[in-house]
Amino acid sequence: MRDGRREGLRVERPVLLLDEKRAKRNVANMAEKAGRSGVRFRPHFKTHQSGEVGEWFRQVGVECITVSSVSMAAYFCANGWNNIVVAFPVNLGAVTRIDELAAKIRLGLLIESDETVAFLNEKLKNSVDLWVNVDVGYHRTGIDWNYADRVLRLAREAEKSNVLSFKGLLTHAGHSYTAKSVKEIEWIHRESVSRMNKLRDELEAKGFEGVQVSVGDTPTCSVVRDFKGVDEIRPGTFVFYDVQQLQLGCCKEEDIAIALCCPVVAKHEERNEIVVHGGAVHLSKDCLIDDDGTEVYGRICLPREKGWGSIIENAYVSSISQEHGIIKADKSFLRSVVVGDSLMVLPVHSCLTVDAMREFQTLDCRTINVMPKFF
Amino acid sequence: MRDGRREGLRVERPVLLLDEKRAKRNVANMAEKAGRSGVRFRPHFKTHQSGEVGEWFRQVGVECITVSSVSMAAYFCANGWNNIVVAFPVNLGAVTRIDELAAKIRLGLLIESDETVAFLNEKLKNSVDLWVNVDVGYHRTGIDWNYADRVLRLAREAEKSNVLSFKGLLTHAGHSYTAKSVKEIEWIHRESVSRMNKLRDELEAKGFEGVQVSVGDTPTCSVVRDFKGVDEIRPGTFVFYDVQQLQLGCCKEEDIAIALCCPVVAKHEERNEIVVHGGAVHLSKDCLIDDDGTEVYGRICLPREKGWGSIIENAYVSSISQEHGIIKADKSFLRSVVVGDSLMVLPVHSCLTVDAMREFQTLDCRTINVMPKFF
Repeated sequence: MRDGRREGLRVERPVLLLDEKRAKRNVANMAEKAGRSGVRFRPHFKTHQSGEVGEWFRQVGVECITVSSVSMAAYFCANGWNNIVVAFPVNLGAVTRIDELAAKIRLGLLIESDETVAFLNEKLKNSVDLWVNVDVGYHRTGIDWNYADRVLRLAREAEKSNVLSFKGLLTHAGHSYTAKSVKEIEWIHRESVSRMNKLRDELEAKGFEGVQVSVGDTPTCSVVRDFKGVDEIRPGTFVFYDVQQLQLGCCKEEDIAIALCCPVVAKHEERNEIVVHGGAVHLSKDCLIDDDGTEVYGRICLPREKGWGSIIENAYVSSISQEHGIIKADKSFLRSVVVGDSLMVLPVHSCLTVDAMREFQTLDCRTINVMPKFF
Repeated sequence: MRDGRREGLRVERPVLLLDEKRAKRNVANMAEKAGRSGVRFRPHFKTHQSGEVGEWFRQVGVECITVSSVSMAAYFCANGWNNIVVAFPVNLGAVTRIDELAAKIRLGLLIESDETVAFLNEKLKNSVDLWVNVDVGYHRTGIDWNYADRVLRLAREAEKSNVLSFKGLLTHAGHSYTAKSVKEIEWIHRESVSRMNKLRDELEAKGFEGVQVSVGDTPTCSVVRDFKGVDEIRPGTFVFYDVQQLQLGCCKEEDIAIALCCPVVAKHEERNEIVVHGGAVHLSKDCLIDDDGTEVYGRICLPREKGWGSIIENAYVSSISQEHGIIKADKSFLRSVVVGDSLMVLPVHSCLTVDAMREFQTLDCRTINVMPKFF
C-alpha cells in the first residue's frame, strides 16, 4: 500500500464504479427536501437509465418519474412504473408507441405546437396528460414565457379533446448550468418560478383550474431550500452528481457517486502526462472550463479498498480521443504512478458517462445494467 | 413531394442510416490505393465495430486488421479474423485475455515502456508480435521519434524473449486532423514517414532486419498518392467519412456513408432554429470549428427516397444536449420544414456516432449491429 492507495488494482478495461451508499444518500436527501417543501418529487431517470437504480427511488416513496424518450418510458413501464412524463417535445413518429403506453400507464407528454396537439387528438385512442413546455430563459426549446396567448391556445385545444388533458406548465431552467455562483443559481430559480407563476395566473384568470408548475434541473434543486410556487421538481443528475455540479457548488466531493476506473497504459514525464484507457467512448466528450480557462474532461482520484480517495490537486483529464484519456498532473504525483496502476476519473457529466458505459459495477463488484440502447 | 424530398418519413427515434454502396466504394478505393503502392492494408475496425461491415473488407482481399481494444480484438477473432493488431498501448490488466487471444490468432501489441515488455515476457505463454508506438509529432502517446536508444532497448528486450517478436514501428499522425490544408496533410505525411524511416535505419544499422513501418490515419491515407517508405497503412474513418474529413478536404460530400435521421420536434422562427431528437447520446459531442469560428456538431441534408440529398447551405447543428439537437438554418429552409418531418444529420466524427448509436439501418431498412459495448 503506497500512501494508502489500493495497489494492484488491475482492470481488464475501463469500469464504471458506483458507490451505492452515496447514490442512495443523494436520493434520500432530495426526496426529503421535496417532502419538506410539499412538492411532488418526479426524478429524471435519464441519468441512471437503470431498473435497479430506479428501485432505490421507490424505496423512499417515489411514484412518479421523468424520462427523456418514449423508448425510456417503455423500459420503465416494463419495470413497473405507471406514472411517467416524457420531458421531451413529442415526436409524431412515435405516436403508435405512445398510444400503446398510454393504454397501460398514466403518461404525460410535452407539447409546444398547435400541430402536435391536433395530431395527438386525431391519432390517440388512449388518454394522456399534456404539459406545455415553457422557456423561462434557457432558450433551448419551449414556448417563451411571455407568450401567454400561445400557451392558452394549446391548453384550450387540449381541453376540447376526449383523450388529451391539460395538466400544467413544465420548464427546464438549463441556464443554471452556466451560472457563475450559487447565488446566481438561486436567482435563476426565483426568476423561473416567478415567470411560471405569472403564466399560471394568466391561465387561471382565463378559467383554468389547478394548473401545475413543474421545474427541474439539478443545480437549482440542489441549492434552493424551499420550492414555494412549485408543484413538482424533476432533477436527474443529483443521483450521481459529477465534476460539473461540484464546480457549480451544487454538491460536495463526497456526494459524487460514480467514477471511471481506468488502467494506466503510458507515462510521459517530460510533459507531465499520464495516458489511461478511458476515452470519449467511456466518459463522453463533455468538458468544463476551469477558472483559469483550462478544458477539463474529468478529475482524478486514487482507488481505495472501498471506492476512491480525494481529488488529486492539479491533476485532470486534459484531452480525450476515442479510447485515450490524457491526464496532466504534478511531477510528484506522476512519479508515484506506474504503468499497470489504475486511476479513478470523476466524470464531468454523469448522464453522458452512464449512457456511454451502459453498466455499473458496485463497490462489492456486482454489475448493474442500464436499459438497452433502444428499448 | 416538396422540392424533391422524401415526405412523410417519420421515425420513432433517431436512426443511423448507412449507405452501403458508398461505404463499399470507400473500402474498394482505399484497398486499390494500398494495392497500387504495394503496402499492406490493415484497416482500423474501430470506426464500424461490426462483423458484417468487416466482411465488406474481406471481399476486397483484406486479411489483417487493426482494433483499439482487446475486447474488440476478441470480437473480431470470433468473427473469423486471425491477424489483428491492437493499436493501443498494452493494458497489463488484460494480460489473461491477451494470452487467450494469442493462442488463437496472430496478435500484434503496441508497446512503449520497458516495464510492459518485461511483464509480457514474464506472463505470456503464447507468442505475440510487438510494435513500438512511435510519436512522430502528435504528442498523444508513444516514444518520441528522436529517442532511437529507447526504441532499440525495447526491440532488444523483445528479441531476447521466446514469446515476443519485434515486428516494427507503428505511428498515428493524429495531428493531420488539425491541418489547415491538404498540402499541410501531405506535408505531415512526408515528415512522419521520413522520421519513421530514420528510426528504422537506425535500428537496421544495429542489426535488426526487416523492420516494418506502419502508419495510419484517414486524412493522410486519403490525400497521399503513394506510400513510399511505408509497409502498412491503418486508416479507419474513411469507411464512412464524415463532416470533419470533408472540411479537411479528405473526401467529397458523396463519400459520406452515414447520416443520422432525426425527427423534427419543434421550430423557433424568431431565432432561426429547428429542434430535433438527435443529441449527444446519438451523435456524440464532437464538434468542429468552422472557418468563421462557429461550432458545428453536424451538417444537414434532406431525406430522399434512397438516402439523403446535398448539404443544405447555412444549416448546421449549432448545439447539442443529451437528447436535443439545435439546428440553425436560413428562414427559407426553416419555413419549408414542419414538425413531424425528419432531417438527416451528417456526423462530425463518424467513429463516435457509431459508438453512440451501436447499430445501422441500411437504405433498404436492414439492421446491422455493432459489437456489444464490451465483448
